Amino acid sequence: MLTLSRLSDPAFSPHSLNKFASTMACGNGYIGIRACHEEDYTQQTRGMYLAGVYHRAGRDETNELVNLPDVIGISLQLDGEPFTLLAGEILSWQRELDFACGELDRRLVWRSTTGKRFQIDSRRFVSLDQLPLAALQFSVTPLDDAAHISLSTGIDATQTNSGRQHLDEASVQVFDQHYLQGVYDTQDRATEVVISASCRLNVASENCFTAKNRRLNCHHALVAHKGETVTLEKIVWVTHRSDKTLASADFAQNAMCELRRCAAQGYDALRAQTALAWQNIWQTCRVEVCSDDPQDQRALDYAVWQLTAMTPAHDDRCSIAAKGLTGEGYKGHVFWDTEIFLLPFHLFTHPQTARSLLRYRWLNLAGAREKARRNGWSGVLFPWESAATGQEETPEFAAINIRTGVRQKVASALAEHHIVADIAWAVVAYWHATHDREFMRHEGLTLLMETASFWISRATDVNGRLEIHDVIGPDEYTEHVNNNAFTNFMAWQNVHDALKFMQQFERSDNAFVQAAQDFLARLWLPSPDEQGVLPQDDTFMAKPAIDLSGYKAKAGKQTILLDYSRAEVNEMQILKQADVVMLNYLLPEKFDREQCAANLAFYEPRTIHDSSLSQAIHGIVAARCGDTAQAYQFWRAGAAIDLGEDPHSCDDGIHAAATGAIWSGVVQGFAGMQVIDGELHLAPKLPEHWQHLKFSLKWRQARLDIYVEGATVTIDSTAPVTLTLWGENLHLTGSDLPFVGTATTEDSSDA
Amino acid sequence: MLTLSRLSDPAFSPHSLNKFASTMACGNGYIGIRACHEEDYTQQTRGMYLAGVYHRAGRDETNELVNLPDVIGISLQLDGEPFTLLAGEILSWQRELDFACGELDRRLVWRSTTGKRFQIDSRRFVSLDQLPLAALQFSVTPLDDAAHISLSTGIDATQTNSGRQHLDEASVQVFDQHYLQGVYDTQDRATEVVISASCRLNVASENCFTAKNRRLNCHHALVAHKGETVTLEKIVWVTHRSDKTLASADFAQNAMCELRRCAAQGYDALRAQTALAWQNIWQTCRVEVCSDDPQDQRALDYAVWQLTAMTPAHDDRCSIAAKGLTGEGYKGHVFWDTEIFLLPFHLFTHPQTARSLLRYRWLNLAGAREKARRNGWSGVLFPWESAATGQEETPEFAAINIRTGVRQKVASALAEHHIVADIAWAVVAYWHATHDREFMRHEGLTLLMETASFWISRATDVNGRLEIHDVIGPDEYTEHVNNNAFTNFMAWQNVHDALKFMQQFERSDNAFVQAAQDFLARLWLPSPDEQGVLPQDDTFMAKPAIDLSGYKAKAGKQTILLDYSRAEVNEMQILKQADVVMLNYLLPEKFDREQCAANLAFYEPRTIHDSSLSQAIHGIVAARCGDTAQAYQFWRAGAAIDLGEDPHSCDDGIHAAATGAIWSGVVQGFAGMQVIDGELHLAPKLPEHWQHLKFSLKWRQARLDIYVEGATVTIDSTAPVTLTLWGENLHLTGSDLPFVGTATTEDSSDA
Repeated sequence: MLTLSRLSDPAFSPHSLNKFASTMACGNGYIGIRACHEEDYTQQTRGMYLAGVYHRAGRDETNELVNLPDVIGISLQLDGEPFTLLAGEILSWQRELDFACGELDRRLVWRSTTGKRFQIDSRRFVSLDQLPLAALQFSVTPLDDAAHISLSTGIDATQTNSGRQHLDEASVQVFDQHYLQGVYDTQDRATEVVISASCRLNVASENCFTAKNRRLNCHHALVAHKGETVTLEKIVWVTHRSDKTLASADFAQNAMCELRRCAAQGYDALRAQTALAWQNIWQTCRVEVCSDDPQDQRALDYAVWQLTAMTPAHDDRCSIAAKGLTGEGYKGHVFWDTEIFLLPFHLFTHPQTARSLLRYRWLNLAGAREKARRNGWSGVLFPWESAATGQEETPEFAAINIRTGVRQKVASALAEHHIVADIAWAVVAYWHATHDREFMRHEGLTLLMETASFWISRATDVNGRLEIHDVIGPDEYTEHVNNNAFTNFMAWQNVHDALKFMQQFERSDNAFVQAAQDFLARLWLPSPDEQGVLPQDDTFMAKPAIDLSGYKAKAGKQTILLDYSRAEVNEMQILKQADVVMLNYLLPEKFDREQCAANLAFYEPRTIHDSSLSQAIHGIVAARCGDTAQAYQFWRAGAAIDLGEDPHSCDDGIHAAATGAIWSGVVQGFAGMQVIDGELHLAPKLPEHWQHLKFSLKWRQARLDIYVEGATVTIDSTAPVTLTLWGENLHLTGSDLPFVGTATTEDSSDA
Repeated sequence: MLTLSRLSDPAFSPHSLNKFASTMACGNGYIGIRACHEEDYTQQTRGMYLAGVYHRAGRDETNELVNLPDVIGISLQLDGEPFTLLAGEILSWQRELDFACGELDRRLVWRSTTGKRFQIDSRRFVSLDQLPLAALQFSVTPLDDAAHISLSTGIDATQTNSGRQHLDEASVQVFDQHYLQGVYDTQDRATEVVISASCRLNVASENCFTAKNRRLNCHHALVAHKGETVTLEKIVWVTHRSDKTLASADFAQNAMCELRRCAAQGYDALRAQTALAWQNIWQTCRVEVCSDDPQDQRALDYAVWQLTAMTPAHDDRCSIAAKGLTGEGYKGHVFWDTEIFLLPFHLFTHPQTARSLLRYRWLNLAGAREKARRNGWSGVLFPWESAATGQEETPEFAAINIRTGVRQKVASALAEHHIVADIAWAVVAYWHATHDREFMRHEGLTLLMETASFWISRATDVNGRLEIHDVIGPDEYTEHVNNNAFTNFMAWQNVHDALKFMQQFERSDNAFVQAAQDFLARLWLPSPDEQGVLPQDDTFMAKPAIDLSGYKAKAGKQTILLDYSRAEVNEMQILKQADVVMLNYLLPEKFDREQCAANLAFYEPRTIHDSSLSQAIHGIVAARCGDTAQAYQFWRAGAAIDLGEDPHSCDDGIHAAATGAIWSGVVQGFAGMQVIDGELHLAPKLPEHWQHLKFSLKWRQARLDIYVEGATVTIDSTAPVTLTLWGENLHLTGSDLPFVGTATTEDSSDA
C-alpha cells in the first residue's frame, strides 16, 4: 500500500470555513460535496453539485451548476442547546481528508457552555466505484454525564445558488420509516434530480419526520448515558436524468432500490470498496517525490485527488468546471482551462478521459458554429464560458467598480478568441500521445478544420498582410488589441495542423486548403527583437511600465483595480498573466531556450500573476530554461493558491487549473517532459532538495514508469517506445530491463 | 404624552431569535421588517415584506408573500473578527420595541474573545407617516482600546422564502458613492420592487462597493480610537408597482429622489415625524387599564401596535395576512381571521380601514365566483386562503404524518365554507357601526346577495328539509360533517341579512327573494338540548370523549397528532376550537346567557385550544356570561400565544387574529360591548385586579370615550348616540357633560 498524505484543516475558524469546504470537498467526477461541517455556520456555504446539471434561474441570468438540496447538514442538540463550535470550548481537534480512500474525517472533544464534555466525530465519503453514492457517519459520546441528544437531518431543499433557486420540489416521501426521498425538477423541466437517503441510529431513539418549507427531515431524540456512543449512519444516493426513458416513478423507485442495497451493506463495507477504487487511481497516477519539505508531496497528492474528483470521466456530455465540483465560482462553467491546464494530466494517465473531454467540445459544435455565424465568421467560435449546450454562457456583467459602483461588462466572450486555437492545440496533443486514428478521423479532424475555418475568416487584410484585430489574449488586463502574439501564433498553428492532418487522413477540400495555405503564407507573426523578446501585441511595447512590486506581493487579489480603472490598466504594461510565456510553453518547437529565457526575463516583472493560471506556467518555462530554483518558487506559489495561508483564496471553489498545473509543473517542468514535433522528450532536473521523483506516463501503447534520483533516470516501459532523453534518442523495447541513464553536466546546468 | 409600554427581549438566546424577530417586527401596514439582529445567526430568519406583493415560485407552489432583499443585515468585524453574540461575553443587554414611536432599540456592551469591550447599539424604525421609509442606525464604541472596525451592509437579494426565490435582479447601481439601488422583478414580471438605500458613517473611513451574487454592498473600514463612537446611518426607501404608468427608469429615479430627501433629513428628524403619527394612533386607539399586573397594559399596547403595523389601510387591494407582515407562516395568506378577529378593532377605531378590508373581498369577487362555479354552486365561494387575486391559494399538502412520513392533504379549501358567511357577517357588522349607505348600496349588498346565493345552492334537500352536508366548521379537528351548527346558523343569518338589506335598499330580485325565503324556512337549524347545549353537528354527540388534559396543557402545539391520526381524532369529541362557543359569540341575539354558559361548560373540556383563535373567544363568551375570572384566564392565555414564554410559538410570524382578540377580549369581553339587533350595548365588568379601564369607540357619527372604574362608567360622546348600558337604554346628546352610571349588583354579579 502506498502511504498517501492527508490534507488537514488545522483549527476551527469561522474565517477559513469556506476555504476548507472547497479544498477538502469530496467528489468523484459525478458528484461533488463541499466539506462543510454538519452543523451550520452563517459564513459557511454548503454545496452539492452534479457534473453537467446546469440551469438558468431567471431573466438575465446564465446557466449555472445547480446547488442541490443538502444532505450533509445535521442539527445536533445536546441537553437542549444547539451544538456550535462558536460557543463552548474545543478541547481536541482533528480534521483531515484522507487521499487514500477519499474520506473526510473530523474528531473533536468539545466542552459545552455548561461544562459537559462530548466526543463528536464524523466521517464521510463520496464513492469512487458507485458514482451516485455518498455516505456519512456522525457520532456523539457524552464523556462526563448522561445527556439528552437530539439529531435532525434529511434532505434540505432550501439550498440556493446565492439566492437563485433552480429546483421545484416535485415530491417528498418517507418509506419504511427509514428512507427519505425527494424528487426535484429544474424549473425548465429539463432535468430531474432524485435524492434518496437512509438514516439509522445504532441505538433506540424517539423518531419522527417533518416535511415543511422544502425541508424533509428525520428527527431522533434519546438520552445517552456517559460513555455511550450514539452513531447516526446516513447513506445517500443521488441520481439525475434529462431523458424520459423511464416513468418518473420507476426512476425514483430504482434509486430507492440502490439505496436499500447500499444501506444494507453499511458504511464500512462501502468505504472499503471506494478505497479499492482510489487505490487504482494512485497506482496509475501518483507522482511521488522525496523532498525535504513534505508539503511538496502533499501538493502532488492534492492535485491528483482533485483532478480525479473534478473530472466527469463517466460522461462526455460534460467537462470540467473552473472550480471543479467544489463550489459555485464561475457558475460551474468550462473555460480553456480544461484543454490547456487539465487535459495534460488525463492525457498522460487516462487518455480515454482526455478523449471524453475533447468529445465534449465536439458534441457542442453547434453552439460554437452559431456563435461564429452570429458574429459574421465561419467555422466555430467556442464560447468563452461553456455549460451544457455549448452556447456562450459568459455573464454580461462581472463585478462592480468598487469605487464608483458602476457595473462592468465582461469582454472575454466578445474577444477572447484564442480558446478556439487552444482546443485545436489539445486535439493535436491528444493525437501525439495516443495516435488514436478513429478519434482523429472523426471528431479530431472536424474540430481542427472547423476551428481553422474560424481563423481564416477572422483575419483582416491590411495591405496584403493578414492581421487579427480586436482580441484579448490570455492576459485579460490588455483588452481589444491587434495581433496579439499568443493569438496569432496559436491561430497559425491551428490552421497548419488542420492542413497537416487533412493530408495525413486524406481528407480533401480544395477551397479550404487554398484558403488555409493563403492564411499561413500571409498571417502576420510578430517577430522577436534581438534578445528574442516577442511583443505581446501591436501596441504593448509603446505603453509605459510602472513598478508592480506592491501588487505582485498580493498576486491573485487584483489589488491593481483598487488604484486604477480597467481602462487605465489597459494602457500600461501590466499583465495579469504573460501571454508570450504561455505561448513559449505551448509551442516549444517555435522558441529556443534563449528566446524563452528572454521573454521570461522581460515579461515576468510586468506580470502581477493575478490569474491563478500564471505562475505555474512561468515555472515550467523557467524549468525548461534550466532555472530549477526559480521554477520551484513558481511551482510552490502556484500550489499555494489553494493550499497556502490565505483563508479566502478559494471560498467559492478550488482553482481547478492550478491543480492541473501542480502536476504539470513537476512532470513538464522538473521532469522536462515535452512533446516536440509529435515526439516525447524528457529532461529531468530536480529541485535541489528533492532526492527523487517517481511517476508514470501513458504514451501511445506504453506505460512508462519513470524514476529520477539526482542525475540518474530509470525508465521502465510496458511496450516499445521511442523518446528523447536530455536530447538523446532512446528506444525502449518494452521487454528489456529498465533503462538507466545519467545526465551530463551540461544537461543539468543552470541557464 | 401617553406613557406607553415597551416590549422587551429579555436576553440574547439562539432559541428565541425568531420569536422576537416576529413580535418585535417593525411595520406600518405597507411594509414589515422582522426584528432580526444586524449580525447573522444560523437560526435567524430575516424577512422584509410588502403588503400585497405575492408571487408563485415554481410548479405546485402557491402564491406567497415575497421575502424581499434584506436591508437590515450588517456584518461587523472588530479587529478582524466577525462580531457574534455566540462568542465573547455580553456584559450588558437591553433590547426593546418602543410602542410610542415604533423604534426597535438594542444596546449592549460586549467583551470579545480577545477581552476588549465594545458598546454596540442599534435602533431602527419603519415610518408610519412615509410608508416606504425605513431607517436604522448602528454604532460601535471601543471601550478599552483603539480597534479596527469594518462594517458591510447593503441590499442582499440572496433572501428567499425557505429556498423559493421570487425575484430576478433587474439591475443594481450605486449613485454618488452613497446611494445604493436594486431593482427586482417578480419572475412572472407582474411586480417590480425598487429598494434604495443610503449608507453614511459619521467619521472618515475607507469605503468600497461590491456587487456579486445578488448582494450589493457598501464596505466601510477604519480605526476608531478608544471611546470614539462610529455610527452608520442607513436610510431605506422601498417601493413597488404592478402597473407601467411610468417608465422603469423614472420609477426608480423617483425612489432615489425620495431617498435623497429623507437621507438629508437624517434619522432623528425622520423618527420625530413617525413618532407624531404613532401619537395619533395611540390617542384614538389606546385601551388603557390600571391593573395590578403591568402585563395587561403591555398586551393591550402590543395588540394595538400590531393591529396598526399589520393592516394595509393604504390599499384596498390587499388585506391582512394571518401573520401580518411579520413572517412567512401561512405564506402571507388572508383567512377568515381578518373579518372575524381583526375587523372589529378597525371598525370601532378607524371604520374606513374596515371598509377597505371589505372592499378587498369585493374586489376579489371574481375568484370567489369562479371557485363556486367550478364546484357546481352559485354565488361566491371565497377562497379559504386568499392572496392578491381572490383565487384559492390553499396549498394542496400541509404537513407530513410525522410517524409514517406520508404527506397529508389540506381539506380546508374543500370544505371550510363558513368563510362565506363570515364575510357576510362582517359586512353587516360594518353597516351597524357606520350606517355607510354608499358602501352598503354598492359593495355591501353585492357581497350579501352573492354569499347568500352560495348558501342557497349549497343546501341539500333531505325529505323536504334543507341540510348543509360535508363541511368543516372552525373546529378543524372535525372534518366533513353534516349540519355543522356554526355553518348552518351563520348561513341562515347570511341569507336573512341579504333579504333584509335588499328590502332596506329597495333592491328587487323576485327569484332570489323567493329562493331565499324558501331557504330560511326550510334550512335545518340544530336545536339545543334542555341545558341549552347545541350539537356541533349531526354526529358529534355520538362520538366518544377522551381525557384531553394532557393535550390542553400544551395547547397550540397539536400534540394530539403525535398520538392519534387525523382520521382517529375526527371520530372523537376532540375540538381544536369550539364551533358553538364561536357561534354564541358572533350571533348574540340568538343565544341567551344560560345557553352560552351551557355550551361553554359542555364544549370547553372537549376543546384543546390548538387553534390560536380559540381561547380569546371563550374568554369573551365567559365574560358575557358574567364569569370575569374565567374570562380573564382565557384572555391572558390568548395574549400569551405570542407574548408568553414559549420561545418558538411565533417563529414564522405573530398570530394576527390573537392580537385582534386581545383588543376584543377587553372591549367586547370586560367592557361588554356587543351589537345586538344593530344597536350598541355596553356592560362593563372588570377583572377584580383592574382598577380602571379607558378606551374609545367610533359608533356611526360619534366618538365615545369610555372610562370604567369599578362599577362606575363614564361615557363622553362627540355626537348624539343611543346605546344600552347594562340593559338600560341611554341617549347621549354629544354636547352634555359626560354621562356617569353605576352598575347595580345584578349587573356585576357572577354567572
